[in-house]
Amino acid sequence: MPDASPAKWHLGHTTWFFEQFVLAKESGYRPFHPQFEYIFNSYYETIGPRMPRAERGLLSRPSVDEVRTYRRHVDEALLSRWSRLPAETMALGIAHEEQHQELLLTDIKHALSRNPLRPAYRAPIAGAPRERSHRWLPFPGGLVEIGDAATGFSFDHERPRHRVFLEPFRLAEWLVSSGDFLAFMTDGGYERPELWLSDGWSAVERHNWSAPLYWESHDGTFFLFTLAGLRELDPAEPVCHVSYYEADAYARWAQARLPSEAEWEHAAARTRVDGNFVESGRLHPGGPSAALYGDCWQWTRSAYQPYPGFRPSPGAVGEYNGKFMCNQQVLRGGSCVSPARHLRASYRNFFPPATRWQFSGIRLARDA
Amino acid sequence: MPDASPAKWHLGHTTWFFEQFVLAKESGYRPFHPQFEYIFNSYYETIGPRMPRAERGLLSRPSVDEVRTYRRHVDEALLSRWSRLPAETMALGIAHEEQHQELLLTDIKHALSRNPLRPAYRAPIAGAPRERSHRWLPFPGGLVEIGDAATGFSFDHERPRHRVFLEPFRLAEWLVSSGDFLAFMTDGGYERPELWLSDGWSAVERHNWSAPLYWESHDGTFFLFTLAGLRELDPAEPVCHVSYYEADAYARWAQARLPSEAEWEHAAARTRVDGNFVESGRLHPGGPSAALYGDCWQWTRSAYQPYPGFRPSPGAVGEYNGKFMCNQQVLRGGSCVSPARHLRASYRNFFPPATRWQFSGIRLARDA
Amino acid sequence: MPDASPAKWHLGHTTWFFEQFVLAKESGYRPFHPQFEYIFNSYYETIGPRMPRAERGLLSRPSVDEVRTYRRHVDEALLSRWSRLPAETMALGIAHEEQHQELLLTDIKHALSRNPLRPAYRAPIAGAPRERSHRWLPFPGGLVEIGDAATGFSFDHERPRHRVFLEPFRLAEWLVSSGDFLAFMTDGGYERPELWLSDGWSAVERHNWSAPLYWESHDGTFFLFTLAGLRELDPAEPVCHVSYYEADAYARWAQARLPSEAEWEHAAARTRVDGNFVESGRLHPGGPSAALYGDCWQWTRSAYQPYPGFRPSPGAVGEYNGKFMCNQQVLRGGSCVSPARHLRASYRNFFPPATRWQFSGIRLARDA
Amino acid sequence: MPDASPAKWHLGHTTWFFEQFVLAKESGYRPFHPQFEYIFNSYYETIGPRMPRAERGLLSRPSVDEVRTYRRHVDEALLSRWSRLPAETMALGIAHEEQHQELLLTDIKHALSRNPLRPAYRAPIAGAPRERSHRWLPFPGGLVEIGDAATGFSFDHERPRHRVFLEPFRLAEWLVSSGDFLAFMTDGGYERPELWLSDGWSAVERHNWSAPLYWESHDGTFFLFTLAGLRELDPAEPVCHVSYYEADAYARWAQARLPSEAEWEHAAARTRVDGNFVESGRLHPGGPSAALYGDCWQWTRSAYQPYPGFRPSPGAVGEYNGKFMCNQQVLRGGSCVSPARHLRASYRNFFPPATRWQFSGIRLARDA
Repeated sequence: MPDASPAKWHLGHTTWFFEQFVLAKESGYRPFHPQFEYIFNSYYETIGPRMPRAERGLLSRPSVDEVRTYRRHVDEALLSRWSRLPAETMALGIAHEEQHQELLLTDIKHALSRNPLRPAYRAPIAGAPRERSHRWLPFPGGLVEIGDAATGFSFDHERPRHRVFLEPFRLAEWLVSSGDFLAFMTDGGYERPELWLSDGWSAVERHNWSAPLYWESHDGTFFLFTLAGLRELDPAEPVCHVSYYEADAYARWAQARLPSEAEWEHAAARTRVDGNFVESGRLHPGGPSAALYGDCWQWTRSAYQPYPGFRPSPGAVGEYNGKFMCNQQVLRGGSCVSPARHLRASYRNFFPPATRWQFSGIRLARDA
Repeated sequence: MPDASPAKWHLGHTTWFFEQFVLAKESGYRPFHPQFEYIFNSYYETIGPRMPRAERGLLSRPSVDEVRTYRRHVDEALLSRWSRLPAETMALGIAHEEQHQELLLTDIKHALSRNPLRPAYRAPIAGAPRERSHRWLPFPGGLVEIGDAATGFSFDHERPRHRVFLEPFRLAEWLVSSGDFLAFMTDGGYERPELWLSDGWSAVERHNWSAPLYWESHDGTFFLFTLAGLRELDPAEPVCHVSYYEADAYARWAQARLPSEAEWEHAAARTRVDGNFVESGRLHPGGPSAALYGDCWQWTRSAYQPYPGFRPSPGAVGEYNGKFMCNQQVLRGGSCVSPARHLRASYRNFFPPATRWQFSGIRLARDA
Repeated sequence: MPDASPAKWHLGHTTWFFEQFVLAKESGYRPFHPQFEYIFNSYYETIGPRMPRAERGLLSRPSVDEVRTYRRHVDEALLSRWSRLPAETMALGIAHEEQHQELLLTDIKHALSRNPLRPAYRAPIAGAPRERSHRWLPFPGGLVEIGDAATGFSFDHERPRHRVFLEPFRLAEWLVSSGDFLAFMTDGGYERPELWLSDGWSAVERHNWSAPLYWESHDGTFFLFTLAGLRELDPAEPVCHVSYYEADAYARWAQARLPSEAEWEHAAARTRVDGNFVESGRLHPGGPSAALYGDCWQWTRSAYQPYPGFRPSPGAVGEYNGKFMCNQQVLRGGSCVSPARHLRASYRNFFPPATRWQFSGIRLARDA
Repeated sequence: MPDASPAKWHLGHTTWFFEQFVLAKESGYRPFHPQFEYIFNSYYETIGPRMPRAERGLLSRPSVDEVRTYRRHVDEALLSRWSRLPAETMALGIAHEEQHQELLLTDIKHALSRNPLRPAYRAPIAGAPRERSHRWLPFPGGLVEIGDAATGFSFDHERPRHRVFLEPFRLAEWLVSSGDFLAFMTDGGYERPELWLSDGWSAVERHNWSAPLYWESHDGTFFLFTLAGLRELDPAEPVCHVSYYEADAYARWAQARLPSEAEWEHAAARTRVDGNFVESGRLHPGGPSAALYGDCWQWTRSAYQPYPGFRPSPGAVGEYNGKFMCNQQVLRGGSCVSPARHLRASYRNFFPPATRWQFSGIRLARDA
C-alpha cells in the first residue's frame, strides 16, 4: 500500500516538522541526526531529497526507541524556548500533528486489514443508538461568504474569505447508510457503467471493485473489518471507505448529487452538531443523525482548487497545500478518527478521487 | 500514442455517429455493416462493447475505400430523409464532426512528427505580421452570468446559464509567446520544483520534459515541427502544445496565474476578435494580438465540473460530456485547427492536465 | 502486438539488409535514403540508433509504393554487381529473407485475427487426409554428433559440429493433435498449477490463458482463426500456436516430456519426411504422420545456448543470433509457413517461452 | 525489493516447513495456528493459497516473540518424536534451513543498504591476506560423469548422475577481482552494447546499471556497502553482486567465457579448497586463491534445466526445484554467507539472470 506509512515514521515525521520549521531557525539548536531530514521529510521539495514513500516500510532503523529519543530531544528543545516560539508556526505544527494522529489510525487499520490474522487494534465500544433522519435541509442560496473568518488558526488554502453565488439547494441531514449502499449494490450499482464517471468506471474495472473497502462477503453475509476486528455489517451505520467515484455513482443512482464544498460550508457554518470524533474512542462512524461534523469525511463534487486571491504561505511551508491543487476532490467535515478540535466549517481536506483507505462517506444534496 | 486514431477511423466514426444517433431510429434503415458499431464506437458504454482505442491502428480492414463507401451510404440515407431529420441531433452530429476535423489534424501532426522522414502535411503559408500587445485588460468583476444564452446549438455542459461572483481581475490581451516561454526555460523552469504542482513535477520527471511538445534543440537552436514540416522556432509566435502543468508553472514563474473559465467567458462574451482558425489554412498559431479566439486553446485554472443545475442529455448521447467531469481541466477559445463557426463564448473544451498533443497555449490573468 | 510489424516494414527491412551488409561495402553505391537505416534497422546496435519496434505501425510514410521503389533500386544495384557479390553474405541475406517471408504470414495472421471483421487472407485449401501415427520411434542414444555438417549455408549458431551424449530415448512420430490438447483442457489442464512451470503458471494467470491462441469457444464448440478465416476446430490436425509453457504442461500431463534439441536433431538427421511448407499454399498445419519437418515448429526442452566452441560471425552480422542466448527456448523443424528449402536437421529457431503467435506445436519424447 | 523477506518471516517459514512436511503427517500433532500455513507458505501451489510475497513486509503480527514461540512449539514436537522422524525429509528440512540462513543475511544486507543511516550488521573482520593466482587450470574433457554420486543427502535436481561430453577447456583458478571489473568499467563496459546479451543490454538501460550492486562512487572513489558498513573498495577482493548479464559481458570483454555447470562440477569434484563460508564470520568474499568453493557464487553459462532422467520428488516437496526450470541460470560453489557443510560438487543454485542481491561473482573459462 504505497499511501500508508509505518507508525514510527509518523512519530518521526511530526517530530521532524517541529525541528525543521521551528527549531532549525533557533540559534544554538543542533539537529538530532543529520540523516533524519532525509528520512522524515514527506514531500517538501525545497528542503532537499527525501526517502521514497514506498521505502519507508524498510526502515528497520532507527528503531522505535531511537525515534522516541528523538521526540524527547525535540520536545525538550521546544520547552526550553517555549515563551519565544513563533505562534503561527507552532499552531501549524500542532494542526499537522493532529492530521497525522488521524492518518496513523487510518494506516494501522489498513495494515491490520491485510494481515491474515485479522488482529483488532482495540476492543469494540458500543455506539449510542442512532435515530435515522430523512430530512432534506433547505437553503435559499444567494450570494454568500465562505472561507476562514480569521478567528483562529487556519490553513492558507482556507483563505481568503470570499463571496460565491449559490443556487437554492437542499442538503441531506443524514449520512448515507450501509443499508442504503447495499441497495445500490443489489440494484447492480457496480455493474452499470451509465451510473459512473468515465474514470470511475475504469477504476471499477481495474481494481475489480464490488463493495466498499473493508467489506467482505462470506456465505452471502457482509462483514466489515474495523479497528475492533472483523464483525457483521450493521445496515444502520454510515457507509464508509468509499472513493469519490463510488460516492458520485451512488448519488446518481439515488437521483441526487454530492454537495459542492461551498454548499457544505454554508450549511455547516450555521450550526455545529457533532458525531463521533477520535475522543469517543469508537474509531468507527455512527453518530447522531443531525451531525454534519465527524463520523465520516464527506466527498464533495468540488475539485480542489485555489480560492480567488489565494496566496500560499511563504517558504517551504507553502508546499503544504497549494501544490496539490489538481486531480483531487475536496472532502469536508472530519471523521471518527479526527481530533474534534481540529475541525471547523472552513476546513478543507482533499484526496485523489480513487482514494478509499480514508474514513470517507457520503452526504447527498439536491437542487431545490 | 494511445490518444490518437488513424484518419480513416475518424471518417468512419463521424459517419457512424449519424448512423447510430439519427438513422438507427429511422424506419427502413439498414445498418451498413453489423460490425461497424463495434469498430467505430468511441466510448458509448450504453451502446455496447467496442474496439479498444489502442487497437485502432491495427485496422488494415475496412480499407479507406470501404469507409468512403460507408460514408456515401450514410450521406445518401440522410439526404433522402433530409426534411424530417431531428434538428437538434443533426446539429450535435455536425458539431461532433467539427470536433473530429480538428482532432484529425491534431493526430496527423503527431503521427508525422514521430516519422523519421519528417514529412510535411502541407506547404507553409506565411502568417500576417503580428503586432504584440502587452496590455492587461481590466474587469471589475461582480455577479455575472455565464453559460449558454440559448441563441443556437450548444452542448449540454454549457448549460444552464447561471450566476457566478467574480473578484476584479485583469486578463492578458496577448498569448504567451515562444520567446516568453524560452525565457522561462532559460531561467531553469523545468528544473525548479517550487514552480510546479506536485502532479506536474511528477510528470516532468516521468516524461523527462524539458520543452513543449514538437520543440527540438539542434546545436543550441530550437526547431519546431509543424504541419508544414520542421522549421526554426519563431520567438514572436504563441507557444503551443504545452500541458496544463507547464501552463500553470509558467504562470507562477511570471507572477501571474491562469484565468478561471468564468473570467475567460465573461471577457470573451463582450468582444470577438478572431485569430487563426482552420479556414486560414495556416494550421499554426500566430494571429492578431487582440484575439481571444483561435490560434491556441487556452488552459484555464478551472477543473472541468458540472454547472449548477447541469442535466446531461437523455440517452446514450448523454455520455458525450458529463461522464468526463473528473481529473480534467477546461480549455477555452479554440485553435488554428478549429472550424471558426464551431466556437462561442460559452464553449468548453477539456483534457487531462498532462495533455500536450492538442494545440494548447497560455493566456495569463492577474488579480486586479 | 509489440512483436509484429507491418507488411511494408518487412519488405523494407529485408531490402535494407542487402543494402547494409552487401551494397554499403561496394564502391560507387549510394544509399537510397539517409533515414532508411534508422527506419529499417531491426536490432543491430553496432549500426546505430533505430526506430522503436512498437512505432513501426505509425509509419504512414514511406508508402508501399516508395518501399517498392527502394526494393527495385537495391535489386538493380545487386544485379549489376552480381558476379562479384560475396557468396556467404548473399546466402545470409537470402536466408534472412526466407525468415521474414515466414514472419510476414505470421504477423498478417495475427493482425487479421484481431480485426472484428475477421477477414481471410486466402481461400481455404483442403489438406490431404492424414493418417494418425501412434508410434514411438526408439533411439539407442550414445555419443552422437550434432551441428552443421558444413555441406552448405548455415547460421553461426549451428556451428561447430560437436559431440553430445544422449541417453536412450523415444520420440513420438506424430505431432500432438488438437483433439489430444482438448483432452488436456477438459482434464483441467489450465487450472492445475502442479502441471506447470512456475513462470508458466504466472503467464496463465496474467494472460488468462484457457486455450491456444486463435481458439475461440462459441456455444460450447471450438473455432479456430486461420489464414483462411474462422472455421470449426478439426481435432485430427496438429495443435498449433501454443507457448513453451503450454507444450511443457501438456507433456507433463501426458506423462511424457519434450525432446531436447540434440535428440530432435539426431532423429531428424536420419530421415527427411516433409509435412506442409509454405509452398503447399495451405498455410495451416496438418500433413502426413511421419513428418518431422514442417506443419509446426516443435518446442524443445533445450534453452537456447551457445554450442561449445561457438564463435559469432564477425561484424554487425554477429548480432544475428548470439546476443539472444538467454531466456529463450529452441524450436525445431519448421512450419507450414516456412519455405521448404530453408530447413535442415541442424536448423535452430528460438523464441521466449511465452510466445504464441508463431506456428508452434508439440512433439513428445520419453526416456527409453 | 520484492525478492526479499523480513527476518521473522524466514524464521517462521523454515519452522513451517518442518510442521508442514514432517509433523502434519504425525498422528496427534496439532498445528500451532490455522493461519500460519497461509502466512508462511512460500510457493507451494499444491498446499493452498498463500500470502503474496510483496506483502510479507506488512506483517506487524505475528510478532517476533510469537514466531519464536511457534519455533519452540515445533522444535519440541520434533524432539519428542525424534527417533521415528523420516530421515530424508528431515535432511531436506535442514538443507532448506541452511538455504534460508544464507538468504537471511542476503536480505538483511539489502535492507540495510537502502537505509539512509547505513547501519552495519556487524563489526568488520579482517580477511587473511590473499595471494592472487593467474593460473588457467587445464582439463582434457571427454566423456565425464556429473550429478550426485549418492553418498549423502542431495536435492532431486542433482540427480541422476549421468554422462556428458566435454571439449577440452581451461578454468580460471581465481575469481574475477573488483580491480579487474573496474578495468572493464573504465573501458566503457556499461556503455558498449556489443559486449552484452540483448536482454542484458535492456536491463542496463532499464535499471541504469553502471556498476555492481552496493558500489557507490563518491568524488571519484568507489565505496562498497558490506554487512560491516560502507567502506572503500578493495581492488584485490573478488567482485560480487553482479547479475548474469554483467558476468557474461565481462567475460566477453575479457575474451573468455563463463564455464558450463558441467565443466565447473567436473573441476570441483577433483579437489576441494575452500574460501570463506558463513562460519568465518567475515560475511564478505575474499579467500585463498585456489578455492572453487565459497566467497562468491559463480554464474555459469548453463541455463537451469532438468538432467536427463530427472524425476521430481513426489508430493508438494516436488515443487522445490523442478518448477523453476525456465528463465534461470545455474550458479555453483557457494558464498561467504553459505554454511560450509551445505555445499558439494553437484550442488546447483539458480536465479533469474538479472539477479544481483545474491553474493554472485565471476569465474572465467576458456576453450583449450
